[in-house]
Amino acid sequence: MAATFDQYPPCRALTMIARDFHARGWMAGTAGNLSARVTNGDTGSFWITASGQPKGQLDEDDLLRVAVQDDTIVESPTPGHRPSAETSIHRVIYQIFPQARAVFHTHTVEACLAAEKAHPGAETLRLPPLEMIKGFDLWEQDPRVDLPVFDNQLDVGKVAQQIKERFTQAAPRIPALLIHAHGVTVWGTSLQQTYHHTELMEFILRYMSLRNDTVT
Amino acid sequence: MAATFDQYPPCRALTMIARDFHARGWMAGTAGNLSARVTNGDTGSFWITASGQPKGQLDEDDLLRVAVQDDTIVESPTPGHRPSAETSIHRVIYQIFPQARAVFHTHTVEACLAAEKAHPGAETLRLPPLEMIKGFDLWEQDPRVDLPVFDNQLDVGKVAQQIKERFTQAAPRIPALLIHAHGVTVWGTSLQQTYHHTELMEFILRYMSLRNDTVT
Amino acid sequence: MAATFDQYPPCRALTMIARDFHARGWMAGTAGNLSARVTNGDTGSFWITASGQPKGQLDEDDLLRVAVQDDTIVESPTPGHRPSAETSIHRVIYQIFPQARAVFHTHTVEACLAAEKAHPGAETLRLPPLEMIKGFDLWEQDPRVDLPVFDNQLDVGKVAQQIKERFTQAAPRIPALLIHAHGVTVWGTSLQQTYHHTELMEFILRYMSLRNDTVT
Amino acid sequence: MAATFDQYPPCRALTMIARDFHARGWMAGTAGNLSARVTNGDTGSFWITASGQPKGQLDEDDLLRVAVQDDTIVESPTPGHRPSAETSIHRVIYQIFPQARAVFHTHTVEACLAAEKAHPGAETLRLPPLEMIKGFDLWEQDPRVDLPVFDNQLDVGKVAQQIKERFTQAAPRIPALLIHAHGVTVWGTSLQQTYHHTELMEFILRYMSLRNDTVT
Repeated sequence: MAATFDQYPPCRALTMIARDFHARGWMAGTAGNLSARVTNGDTGSFWITASGQPKGQLDEDDLLRVAVQDDTIVESPTPGHRPSAETSIHRVIYQIFPQARAVFHTHTVEACLAAEKAHPGAETLRLPPLEMIKGFDLWEQDPRVDLPVFDNQLDVGKVAQQIKERFTQAAPRIPALLIHAHGVTVWGTSLQQTYHHTELMEFILRYMSLRNDTVT
Repeated sequence: MAATFDQYPPCRALTMIARDFHARGWMAGTAGNLSARVTNGDTGSFWITASGQPKGQLDEDDLLRVAVQDDTIVESPTPGHRPSAETSIHRVIYQIFPQARAVFHTHTVEACLAAEKAHPGAETLRLPPLEMIKGFDLWEQDPRVDLPVFDNQLDVGKVAQQIKERFTQAAPRIPALLIHAHGVTVWGTSLQQTYHHTELMEFILRYMSLRNDTVT
Repeated sequence: MAATFDQYPPCRALTMIARDFHARGWMAGTAGNLSARVTNGDTGSFWITASGQPKGQLDEDDLLRVAVQDDTIVESPTPGHRPSAETSIHRVIYQIFPQARAVFHTHTVEACLAAEKAHPGAETLRLPPLEMIKGFDLWEQDPRVDLPVFDNQLDVGKVAQQIKERFTQAAPRIPALLIHAHGVTVWGTSLQQTYHHTELMEFILRYMSLRNDTVT
Repeated sequence: MAATFDQYPPCRALTMIARDFHARGWMAGTAGNLSARVTNGDTGSFWITASGQPKGQLDEDDLLRVAVQDDTIVESPTPGHRPSAETSIHRVIYQIFPQARAVFHTHTVEACLAAEKAHPGAETLRLPPLEMIKGFDLWEQDPRVDLPVFDNQLDVGKVAQQIKERFTQAAPRIPALLIHAHGVTVWGTSLQQTYHHTELMEFILRYMSLRNDTVT
């Protein structure tokens, strides 16, 4: 039976996924970040990739454990490591969605190009009704799905705050959000599902980036 | 001499091909499905990938054996596994074409883009006269080949029924069909040939997706 | 020191290169063919890939040795194997260019798209003055290089005959030719150099296929 | 903890990186060149890839050690090897930037296409304000970064001289330069950082090459 990423210790699974995504060009340089909520023991914390580490060479001690409720660093195996600069975005996802077990942020050319299909100032981007949408458990004929879109800001905390405000009002239909000029963030109820969600969303964004027209 | 996929037990061959196609981005998430007709023993059945399993991590017990004539599950090595949601499409191919030994369905951005080159409502898409067409044993100067195209429907059984109706009237010139916003399905007289047919068809669809004009 | 392909027995080198090019998508299905002139012993013969064998699974006994001067099969390790359908093209290259040690034919979407940049009926395609051109030992500022272009014909012998006629009159500036809707063929004075020529030519053709304008 | 390329002997690291970049298609044939300044011992010298060696098969004795101040070859493990034809460009980078520890030159289709977005005769190309820019330690909202652009010349020494003149007057905001029809050159304070800079710059150039408009 297919061995899922959830069968590995979370830090082991995250390094496997980081190397996989780096090899695809989805985490160039030190870009992108991955996290997994602790499910045994201190469930009020999550593991997240350290800032500035090369995703294609990541090791298990390149992750830190941080609190879900505030910015406490709970466990840091490697002296000097700091949590990813985008930890605050992961944190709000875990706060708002209790079922979220993992959050992955990839960083692709295709996501940047697809984001430009949104109308200027629009808060969402209409996704095309591809069969792939069903991978998000939306079993509808010609599903109408709007992907939340956020402006990229130097202060990541502001982006996290906007995500919190919008998602507290209404959860998106699919567990994903897009930041302009930056990339997509997805979540799921398991590491394996979040891995699939990343693949599905990158598929959809690549499709959108290759179409000549504006999709929204 | 080149070891073909037909020299392996069918479930072993299908997991090898699933991992290969996943690595190319042709089976993102749990998308796509592969099957092989039983040739020793119960030839009235075929092995097909289980629903919802990750194609890049597939194991041999992630396949089920189902009947060709009806929707009986003959053998299911892993409790809880269900056959692919698109088993009905595989089944009609095996019913209509007695020589079909394997059916592969991949799911690519390029196939979705190429399908849009068909005229709205058209039942076929004219393929360009590439040398690659000869890989389908069509030895003609500038071959005129029309690929059958079907609408994507939430009820896969309806798609299967339409395939059955159209193919019973007239078989397509090449063993392949395209579903809008979804992907291509190919078949062949061996696992190895079906593997080639997938590569050839994805080549042709990628060519079509990259051309600026409408090909049909 | 870098181990070149010429340090291996030729059939070993050709299977390594076939698997390499297949993995890049340059020899989909059973497309493409590779050959190497014998340099020890019977120099009037060359090894060439058998017809219809999968390039990603090729073994050393999937090559046959054929004569340079006529269509004699000199040595055939595997019963039933026939030489590539395009052996006649390889043969004329070896006949016309005594220094040609290897001939590689790849089959890419990019080559098909780039060929369409040629004016209708034109016998050549002007290459862009990229730095890559220097890889063919053309050390010029803004080199003007015309790649010979041939129509694709069902009868490969006719293509081979046209190549012979044109190249006997005048050798192309670089060791390469393009066939419409089919792909590029390159040669070189060693297996290693021919491998480089393939990479360079595919680089140039990909560049041309991605530009929006007509280059010729 | 992630093993960086700086933990290996420099020639070992450079062969690893050469094989990595070749596999991505960034060093086709024998294109591209990599160097690393000596940090233990003779700090007035640097190791650089030999001319004409295949980057996908590079070995540690395919590098030569040359002087930073003049064109002396200090150490040449393999008889007959000459330093890369573009050694003079590496040398001026090491001369002007004392902190530069490594210089990598890749050679991609995307870099050639992006360079054409520059206005004719322009000395710079405005980069888009992508999040990726932060990988160069530029923490600004919508950073305005101009990438220096140079004409490709047959005489590499002339290009090196122009780089020296322009960079002596004013260093670019990010450690990178682009040569038309040729490719990008980046540098960094470590092998690992230079590896990241290559990935970041190729990301940005690919984004630019895929956009339809002129960016500058």
